[in-house]
Amino acid sequence: MSLLAEHTTTTAADAIERAEVAVLPTGSTEQHGPALALGMDHLAAEAFARTAVDRDDTVVLPTIPVGVSEHHRQFDGTLYVTAETFERYVEETISSLAAHGVRKAVVVNGHGGNSDALRRAARTLRDEETAFAPPWNWWDSVADVADDLFDEEGGHADAMESSLLWHLREDLVDPDALEDAEAGASEAWGESVHGAALGFDTIDFSESGAVGRPTQADPEKGARLFDAGRDQLHALLDWLVDRPLEDCWPSDHK
Amino acid sequence: MSLLAEHTTTTAADAIERAEVAVLPTGSTEQHGPALALGMDHLAAEAFARTAVDRDDTVVLPTIPVGVSEHHRQFDGTLYVTAETFERYVEETISSLAAHGVRKAVVVNGHGGNSDALRRAARTLRDEETAFAPPWNWWDSVADVADDLFDEEGGHADAMESSLLWHLREDLVDPDALEDAEAGASEAWGESVHGAALGFDTIDFSESGAVGRPTQADPEKGARLFDAGRDQLHALLDWLVDRPLEDCWPSDHK
Amino acid sequence: MSLLAEHTTTTAADAIERAEVAVLPTGSTEQHGPALALGMDHLAAEAFARTAVDRDDTVVLPTIPVGVSEHHRQFDGTLYVTAETFERYVEETISSLAAHGVRKAVVVNGHGGNSDALRRAARTLRDEETAFAPPWNWWDSVADVADDLFDEEGGHADAMESSLLWHLREDLVDPDALEDAEAGASEAWGESVHGAALGFDTIDFSESGAVGRPTQADPEKGARLFDAGRDQLHALLDWLVDRPLEDCWPSDHK
Amino acid sequence: MSLLAEHTTTTAADAIERAEVAVLPTGSTEQHGPALALGMDHLAAEAFARTAVDRDDTVVLPTIPVGVSEHHRQFDGTLYVTAETFERYVEETISSLAAHGVRKAVVVNGHGGNSDALRRAARTLRDEETAFAPPWNWWDSVADVADDLFDEEGGHADAMESSLLWHLREDLVDPDALEDAEAGASEAWGESVHGAALGFDTIDFSESGAVGRPTQADPEKGARLFDAGRDQLHALLDWLVDRPLEDCWPSDHK
Amino acid sequence: MSLLAEHTTTTAADAIERAEVAVLPTGSTEQHGPALALGMDHLAAEAFARTAVDRDDTVVLPTIPVGVSEHHRQFDGTLYVTAETFERYVEETISSLAAHGVRKAVVVNGHGGNSDALRRAARTLRDEETAFAPPWNWWDSVADVADDLFDEEGGHADAMESSLLWHLREDLVDPDALEDAEAGASEAWGESVHGAALGFDTIDFSESGAVGRPTQADPEKGARLFDAGRDQLHALLDWLVDRPLEDCWPSDHK
Amino acid sequence: MSLLAEHTTTTAADAIERAEVAVLPTGSTEQHGPALALGMDHLAAEAFARTAVDRDDTVVLPTIPVGVSEHHRQFDGTLYVTAETFERYVEETISSLAAHGVRKAVVVNGHGGNSDALRRAARTLRDEETAFAPPWNWWDSVADVADDLFDEEGGHADAMESSLLWHLREDLVDPDALEDAEAGASEAWGESVHGAALGFDTIDFSESGAVGRPTQADPEKGARLFDAGRDQLHALLDWLVDRPLEDCWPSDHK
Repeated sequence: MSLLAEHTTTTAADAIERAEVAVLPTGSTEQHGPALALGMDHLAAEAFARTAVDRDDTVVLPTIPVGVSEHHRQFDGTLYVTAETFERYVEETISSLAAHGVRKAVVVNGHGGNSDALRRAARTLRDEETAFAPPWNWWDSVADVADDLFDEEGGHADAMESSLLWHLREDLVDPDALEDAEAGASEAWGESVHGAALGFDTIDFSESGAVGRPTQADPEKGARLFDAGRDQLHALLDWLVDRPLEDCWPSDHK
Repeated sequence: MSLLAEHTTTTAADAIERAEVAVLPTGSTEQHGPALALGMDHLAAEAFARTAVDRDDTVVLPTIPVGVSEHHRQFDGTLYVTAETFERYVEETISSLAAHGVRKAVVVNGHGGNSDALRRAARTLRDEETAFAPPWNWWDSVADVADDLFDEEGGHADAMESSLLWHLREDLVDPDALEDAEAGASEAWGESVHGAALGFDTIDFSESGAVGRPTQADPEKGARLFDAGRDQLHALLDWLVDRPLEDCWPSDHK
Repeated sequence: MSLLAEHTTTTAADAIERAEVAVLPTGSTEQHGPALALGMDHLAAEAFARTAVDRDDTVVLPTIPVGVSEHHRQFDGTLYVTAETFERYVEETISSLAAHGVRKAVVVNGHGGNSDALRRAARTLRDEETAFAPPWNWWDSVADVADDLFDEEGGHADAMESSLLWHLREDLVDPDALEDAEAGASEAWGESVHGAALGFDTIDFSESGAVGRPTQADPEKGARLFDAGRDQLHALLDWLVDRPLEDCWPSDHK
Repeated sequence: MSLLAEHTTTTAADAIERAEVAVLPTGSTEQHGPALALGMDHLAAEAFARTAVDRDDTVVLPTIPVGVSEHHRQFDGTLYVTAETFERYVEETISSLAAHGVRKAVVVNGHGGNSDALRRAARTLRDEETAFAPPWNWWDSVADVADDLFDEEGGHADAMESSLLWHLREDLVDPDALEDAEAGASEAWGESVHGAALGFDTIDFSESGAVGRPTQADPEKGARLFDAGRDQLHALLDWLVDRPLEDCWPSDHK
Repeated sequence: MSLLAEHTTTTAADAIERAEVAVLPTGSTEQHGPALALGMDHLAAEAFARTAVDRDDTVVLPTIPVGVSEHHRQFDGTLYVTAETFERYVEETISSLAAHGVRKAVVVNGHGGNSDALRRAARTLRDEETAFAPPWNWWDSVADVADDLFDEEGGHADAMESSLLWHLREDLVDPDALEDAEAGASEAWGESVHGAALGFDTIDFSESGAVGRPTQADPEKGARLFDAGRDQLHALLDWLVDRPLEDCWPSDHK
Repeated sequence: MSLLAEHTTTTAADAIERAEVAVLPTGSTEQHGPALALGMDHLAAEAFARTAVDRDDTVVLPTIPVGVSEHHRQFDGTLYVTAETFERYVEETISSLAAHGVRKAVVVNGHGGNSDALRRAARTLRDEETAFAPPWNWWDSVADVADDLFDEEGGHADAMESSLLWHLREDLVDPDALEDAEAGASEAWGESVHGAALGFDTIDFSESGAVGRPTQADPEKGARLFDAGRDQLHALLDWLVDRPLEDCWPSDHK
């Protein structure tokens, strides 16, 4: 059992001694249209992260539930912190664990808006040689599977996300609202005008808050996504466990 | 049902419309000696906060699990962020909810080290007239009950905390380790030398990480603490629901 | 003539009175492999921006030549500032012009590493209702043309960039070195391991500093890219000139 | 003679050579009700600090007169800086002295509102191994004496403070106003509602700005307080002079 | 009597009601060579400021004793804070007074190294229309008198400063050390090499820490300087008292 | 050829290997009255800097075109960033070059308002022993020549600046407007009232934006200024090339 928060200091000492890699779930609490719960992104991250609980070479940290979601602020219930605050919160959390000796980590991320901040945090931790902590976005790892399952470009509260949540937490999906979600959805994220990316806020291009074709969702597809993502995550963990720490740091000047 | 993260935007709109007060649980993931789980403080905060889930006038936010715990850093497994980062994370989270219309909040706090930062966040939010969001420390609200139940000064991983966790999550207490916890504990928090408060880190004054007399713990006492704290919290929520927002802001110059 | 720096205050007053949109070129001074000059990105941005000099409804600002290039730092000659400093430099420059009355702008950007910072700056300026200043990346506007011209995924010092510079500044391309550039190049940007984006520094995945197939470059292709990009930029400027300022600001809460 | 500001560089070199501990007085300039001068807190700190002037092992720094007093801002004449600014001002001052070789210090503090910031400064200086500089609050060191002398809970401009100032600077106390002070005073600091500490500003709970029972004040009691505090301070200085610097730094990971 | 710190809130209310201008003394505690006390600059500022105590239209704030003196750090006893911290400390102090209604101020400054920071603070306070608070450097106001009295370029611990301190605090000047001061002094501040100002630290160009010809000092010259400076300061205060607040704010765009 | 931006990484490696000193031009884009172009200051800096292009021991960086010009903001076309942002932009740029091995630099500065920020940047870089990078203001280096050529105190858009620009870029001077410039000019910079430096914005003391006697300008005088400045700059470069790096760092405590 390696949810860090469930260890005492005595058992944590052992778990940390054995662990090579920490797993930190991050997400958001933000609008996901009329059919999905606001917690979608942190719940997904938590679900993937917790598949690592039985690994002896891993320790799972608590879930960070509020992220960089200002661009969803016009929709009810969206919580957010600034990118800078989120970056620091993640960076300092990982840094505090690294001081106990676990200096490799995977940030299991459920929210696209967090990505830049996570990447900056990872860069800083690596440049200081504090920790090697790349973010892992679950949807990036299952792009091929999603292409097979869904006919959508998507990007937010789409068929892919809807399916995953339906699989993970059936009670947090309202299937009757998927039609409304799709009716007010845009096809793709943002708005491009002659090469300039506009679409600063989701509301600029989506009426329902969704982007994609959520009516294609079903829980079996969600199960396939989850299994595929879990396999990718564990392959990444295996790879990282084996990677010598000294290979993780920045190269010298050429 | 008013865990914000479990609402869709549609139902969140209704819940926020009805809600007068938000409840934000904050804690830490930090050493609590050999007998208690590291998650003690955020689990306690979450447990108190979730008693408000059935209230129609309240909305419960996700739990913020890592806090201001640098002073426990010498003990295995302690995670921490700086006071400044924690303060901003909380302040911005509350501010983002306030923009949807819920401008009163109670920060249900499980960790003493968070208190100064929470107080600064509450002061800023109030001075800006963004939100009125005082912190509520569960142990302050049950001081009288604890005095009756325990013969300890305490302060960390003591009989009071041990009892509460035993009641809430029996699986996260190791009763056999309470003797060790007490054997290495200090009587009271910190170290005072001729009026100067030293004891910057817990390890400066406690061998086991505990402060108090944890062997006095039992789960029934924990149940009494929990019930007493819950009653206090709901009395506070009632009081805050009734308090006009305009009475919450700072007074003018005298 | 509307290079702002070449106006006196007297003629600037007229130019600003007439102008609807400012054009700010931004780039970098960073390695572009053995065949292209370090100034590639700011020179390209400047060249596109200066095509707007004859427009009466536009004013062109000086070129910002150093950007967010830390990830190229292991290669000789790369200059960089932090993302935060770059973001502020751009944001404050645009804000200072907006105070004279030109509150729409296009940031003509030549460097991918600047994009996140430019997007944050644009977001801040828009949220404050100071200015509407979306970044325009020249390569995004000519993606279709590039697909026709080149068989590469590319991403840095590739056939696309090499062609453009060859067209703009023949003296700054060393055609004899294009083979070396390609020999040490990676096919695509970065390195993905089981869904995690690694490749924090260019040197992690490219020996020569290039990414793509630079030997496909020639100046005629560069001319076609430049013309296509220029047309897109002017279409964007036309669109922005016509867009009422009040339509540029963020939407209200839904 | 060891007021640092009264030394030339020549004599300062000697004084610093001999000194083991610096003494830095900090206070505030803030309302102390109708009977006491605004300078109460920095004057008290200065008076205690200056008792160390004759010690050969000590050097006394200039008094920092404005502190963290925003919560008194509704009362006339209150000056304040932010907690962050005050913290930095103190930390940097101590750090600059430490560079000359005096790496232990006592911050003799006269204002409760400064305490958190002083504690953070001391923590930072210690974590960096720049200096060991715990704050010493005069009222904490004489709590027992005050309990004997006064029947009050108090906390601000109370009988304890009034007595001390009366002893130190009779001209800065208006004895005729002590009744008014008490008439408008609260019994204790702040306002607790069901365990939540409200009372963000003094004006929220005190009409006169005082907290306690100032009419119990007299100068003889002030003399007793001063002598007791002075003795405590010198005991602390003796203890600190003898403490090896290496014992002052943080412990290693357990 | 209008030392703010010596007022109670009751009398402060009256003094502030009558006052048009605040006077804030700022200086430093830094090396002034072998003959002058480290407190020279804050003592001088305080002495000038206190001449305003009898004015009914003025209120005198406490002295800020540590300033921007990093460039003297190689000499014993020099204390310093960063320019940014000093700037904030001053700006926030003035801002807190302005909230009580005194929105014009003179910062009576005794240390050249503070000037840039004071100017930035004044600019910020003016741009925000919080307060109009120009710095007044005593030496700038008596440049003509000093030209008559001394044959020196000077700049630090010179005949001008030595004379002033000799007049103000005879006990803080060691006349026997003036020869040593001069023997190790440079003629003028800094070091210019082909138009570049080097001389980042005083020690780069002065052996004794002094700059000028301190042996020309005597207390009668100091008295003349003081009287001349005092007259200038009061003329400035008169001018500022009469200046309408609305004339103090920045002009609109031309 | 050593404009860094025109090198490929291959030739940059050689140029950097040979170079001892970097040259970084900085200026502003700000009002220079009715007769001179807004780019005056960065164009002048660039012109001086580019005289170093043929030196083998030097590498010339791109020009930083926007500086600390807030005080000119009421005049049309003035761009500016804050002093802090400008300082960081310059400091980080120099620091990034230093990492390639060129650790001495001259900042060729064309704008007086940049001076304090450049000095702070140089101090920081030197204190960290990252680089030795003093600013060189062209007008300081030709003060004697200017005294011979012009009868003015001046300070902005004066005869000295007008002559220089006339020499460098005849097309950017409007000789017919020099009379207007002078008619609305002040004699000297700023406004001194009883020793206090007021004149926070240029508009506070100059109607036309100019300070000095621009009608005395002519291009031949500009040529003389330019030649004299260039000679000074190259003498400085020679001096700096020969100066051992270890002599550039701060001295130890005395």
